[in-house]
Amino acid sequence: MNIITISREFGSGGREAGKRLADILDIAYYDNEIISAIAKKSGLDAKYVDNISEKGIRAGYPVTFGRTFSLQPVMQNNTKVLVMQQQILKDLAAKGDCVIVGRCADVILQEHHPFNLFFYANMTSKIRRCQERAPLGENFTDQEMEKKIRRIDRDRAKYYDFFSNLKWGAKEGYHLCINTSDMEIKRLIPFVAEYAKDRFGRNNS
Amino acid sequence: MNIITISREFGSGGREAGKRLADILDIAYYDNEIISAIAKKSGLDAKYVDNISEKGIRAGYPVTFGRTFSLQPVMQNNTKVLVMQQQILKDLAAKGDCVIVGRCADVILQEHHPFNLFFYANMTSKIRRCQERAPLGENFTDQEMEKKIRRIDRDRAKYYDFFSNLKWGAKEGYHLCINTSDMEIKRLIPFVAEYAKDRFGRNNS
Repeated sequence: MNIITISREFGSGGREAGKRLADILDIAYYDNEIISAIAKKSGLDAKYVDNISEKGIRAGYPVTFGRTFSLQPVMQNNTKVLVMQQQILKDLAAKGDCVIVGRCADVILQEHHPFNLFFYANMTSKIRRCQERAPLGENFTDQEMEKKIRRIDRDRAKYYDFFSNLKWGAKEGYHLCINTSDMEIKRLIPFVAEYAKDRFGRNNS
Repeated sequence: MNIITISREFGSGGREAGKRLADILDIAYYDNEIISAIAKKSGLDAKYVDNISEKGIRAGYPVTFGRTFSLQPVMQNNTKVLVMQQQILKDLAAKGDCVIVGRCADVILQEHHPFNLFFYANMTSKIRRCQERAPLGENFTDQEMEKKIRRIDRDRAKYYDFFSNLKWGAKEGYHLCINTSDMEIKRLIPFVAEYAKDRFGRNNS
């Protein structure tokens, strides 16, 4: 099976890159689908699952099903989500060629020898990208946006450290690290797709 | 002017990548040419220049011209080589599109907005590549080769720190970081060349 994993700094355009890559290669793309699958399977709230699924076991979001608000079920549920996520990632990988965004898929699926990409950019460029794509009604100043970006990436790094011996974003863990500062994702991705095709060609031969 | 700079870990195949890239793009390739130019201009020994030109001002190689072996002329000559190297890099960049390997060209030529590539690989792969390309008569064990690789990269890193605020090899300083572990350079480079062409196309338009 040919798997591409996308890791990315918040605001670097990694998600768009993943979608475009899957489109060009005509293979499945998994991102929020993973959340929905876990939520459905577990009966937990999708927003809660989303939070755990990228922040890891220590995320302190209150449980929103049932009426228990003590700490123990929070930890139990966090663990449950992470275990489920691992299983779902493996099930998806077994189904066919795909692009998976985030969720430590590069580490969790390493026995599949995935093609691991890391997208990053300078802060100015990430703030601009986030501002352009901000949902209606979100009016962050650039300073607030920078804070949000740093917070999200800190969480991603912590989550990654939970699964991997390598540091999140350390180039050694990836096959290609792509700086998207001042780059249009749609112009960039065709070359990455060609590279991936060549790689897949060799895997399959 | 379109400039591509190649930074690389020793044994990652960066030099071969640079040559192939220059070939495909049909532009000039500079590597040892820089050394010869400095040696010729300064009257210093090419081996000495080579040593300074990647190790920086603190390289303690004895001066091999004249008969002076005191420390002061060593420092003076080291500085002289570095200043000359900067000028030669700028002259080369002004001459036309090119690929330049090493020598902090990414930092020294930053006003030209070069396309900066970093090549890296895991140690096993670097040792294998170095052993395959070892000159006749060099019979290093893998352990000795690893030591050599680490020493050379340590020198490169130190030299880089002399010119830049960024760390050598930190992905933030490059547009693309390419992991060559278990990769054939000749299969990899066509995609990088296409990416570079697109980039140059935009620069020139």
